[in-house]
Amino acid sequence: MQRNALVSAVALAAAVTGLMSLTGTAQAQDSYHWKMVTSWPKNFPGVGQGPERLAKLVDEMSDGRLTIDVYGAGQLVPGFEVFDAVSEGTAEMGHSASYYWKGKVPAAQFFAAVPFGMNAQEMNAWLQYGGGMDLWNEVYEPFGVEVMVAGASGVQMGGWYNKEINSVADLEGLKMRMPGLGGEVMNRMGVAIVNMPGGEIFTSLQSGAIDATEWIGPYNDLAFGLYQAADYYYYPGWHEPTVMFEAIVNQQAMESLPADLQAILRSAVADVNQSVLDEYTARNNDALKTLVEEHDVVLKRFPDDVLAKAKELSAQVVSELAASDPMAKKIYDSYSTFQDKVENYHAISEQAYYNARNPEGDTTQD
Amino acid sequence: MQRNALVSAVALAAAVTGLMSLTGTAQAQDSYHWKMVTSWPKNFPGVGQGPERLAKLVDEMSDGRLTIDVYGAGQLVPGFEVFDAVSEGTAEMGHSASYYWKGKVPAAQFFAAVPFGMNAQEMNAWLQYGGGMDLWNEVYEPFGVEVMVAGASGVQMGGWYNKEINSVADLEGLKMRMPGLGGEVMNRMGVAIVNMPGGEIFTSLQSGAIDATEWIGPYNDLAFGLYQAADYYYYPGWHEPTVMFEAIVNQQAMESLPADLQAILRSAVADVNQSVLDEYTARNNDALKTLVEEHDVVLKRFPDDVLAKAKELSAQVVSELAASDPMAKKIYDSYSTFQDKVENYHAISEQAYYNARNPEGDTTQD
Repeated sequence: MQRNALVSAVALAAAVTGLMSLTGTAQAQDSYHWKMVTSWPKNFPGVGQGPERLAKLVDEMSDGRLTIDVYGAGQLVPGFEVFDAVSEGTAEMGHSASYYWKGKVPAAQFFAAVPFGMNAQEMNAWLQYGGGMDLWNEVYEPFGVEVMVAGASGVQMGGWYNKEINSVADLEGLKMRMPGLGGEVMNRMGVAIVNMPGGEIFTSLQSGAIDATEWIGPYNDLAFGLYQAADYYYYPGWHEPTVMFEAIVNQQAMESLPADLQAILRSAVADVNQSVLDEYTARNNDALKTLVEEHDVVLKRFPDDVLAKAKELSAQVVSELAASDPMAKKIYDSYSTFQDKVENYHAISEQAYYNARNPEGDTTQD
Repeated sequence: MQRNALVSAVALAAAVTGLMSLTGTAQAQDSYHWKMVTSWPKNFPGVGQGPERLAKLVDEMSDGRLTIDVYGAGQLVPGFEVFDAVSEGTAEMGHSASYYWKGKVPAAQFFAAVPFGMNAQEMNAWLQYGGGMDLWNEVYEPFGVEVMVAGASGVQMGGWYNKEINSVADLEGLKMRMPGLGGEVMNRMGVAIVNMPGGEIFTSLQSGAIDATEWIGPYNDLAFGLYQAADYYYYPGWHEPTVMFEAIVNQQAMESLPADLQAILRSAVADVNQSVLDEYTARNNDALKTLVEEHDVVLKRFPDDVLAKAKELSAQVVSELAASDPMAKKIYDSYSTFQDKVENYHAISEQAYYNARNPEGDTTQD
């Protein structure tokens, strides 16, 4: 090649490269800009960190080809309208919990929290290797929504009470805020269930409008200041052995993505599923210490008779839900078969190990 | 613009696009082809599925720009030379467990399994939100290796014994296969520890060359046929409250990747970290049922005095390791501070919940 020809070739290559960076992005690698609506206040501690992390991971992995704006509850749609917004395509995706949709899909409650049901480790195993995830998608499919599991709270706390509970009789006549299936169980033990948004809990408890409330666990409960409004903090949260959170995606939006971006989105959700539980597990430790050591909160285990009665009534409430429609029955069968087996296995592994390591259980009050 | 000028512009755009697809891939999007060496037989059930899944996820997410060939133990390097191979760049990455490198880095054992230490949920929280991951990388940094956590076994089983263990005295004089810190604890209870590769365990137990062995849990133990060689299956696996697996990457290889592929690799590892535990949790249930119902395995809990003695000696062995070098001390301090707090928290959440749901514990023999 002569010198002039070489110069021309270099110049042409430079021109092509320059043009490529302008036109190439649009053609070979389309960009996508999504909205994610959530049921949590923007940047809410714990679960609210999940969607932020998700958006960041997807941005990094896709080199900016898929970017996601995260909206707190009420910023684009109210927290309880996340499912509809995703179903209708107002937002491409959402982060929430499936029990909020029980009015529309009663069977969905099995995927969020079941009283005396499975904990986070067990739920993840059932969802990924026990058929649970397929059932969850089957439930949402008619709404044009794809679902992925996207975080766990771990075993929650039993709640804050303004008096000691020494027997089932002590529950009778209490006014309590407890949503979902657990609330129905409490109701059958004589508790009047009051529903209210998170933002009203503190004032209602302090004013005496309610006598008790459950919220989440030490980390979120400390942030809410609930220890200032009630003296007794009960455990364990039999009504919510975990809440599993969900990432939901409009099916058409998902299908519009090329295969690599779909895979990136799924993997980012899996990462967040783990990290939300990790954060709760880590932060709850310190928050519990602060509650007990600095705020003199009295930590109490529910008496045996309350736990036994709650377990009996939970089985009743859950089987009534299963009887309510065929899809709920199908999920219940899968769920309870898996739980029977994993309970046996965890009895000799996780449970037996906890009890061997710490035979005395709770020693925080000693 | 006149018609001729428009035609020319369209032609130019088409030419540029054609060139772009030839030159763009090589320039903006280099491809990488990696080798991953592992310490497991190729496609080993449970942990061996992790590396395969990792390679598949990375391939999908990167649209083939980063492909990874997975090698079983001995296919490229022996299973116990994975760390060296990655450190030297023979392979770009590896999948293994950190206690295999205790001869080189004694402190690394804290990241795999600690007798009476933290379980999988606790380890993940410490690693990601308690400073553990930074310490792990500090330990491997001098070897040019970056590490990520990449799977968990969950609480393991205590092992197979050819006689009943009714007290610490019954352990004396037994010959047992148990590696790591747990083996040292057993040794202090009078057990002669024998080391051997996994492939020799069955024959040694059957021939009486050893009286007892630990392996992993129901799923892997059933596959190995250990029930044919010993009658008693003890729990819980206090010596390994989980094993955490590791993905290790040669630092130079990691730095050679563009930022998006680095993010993709990290996220795929996080996905696998969860899925290995999910698979174990799901498969162990069925395997346990098969062992008890079809193979009449006698499932037994270690007696209280054995568990109490093992706990006492474990504290001794672990603190001796901490005293052995400054890095081990630094990790021990972080680990044990976190464990103290999470034990308190889990006493009122996970542990209290297991005991409320299943007050009788193991009922498989009833």
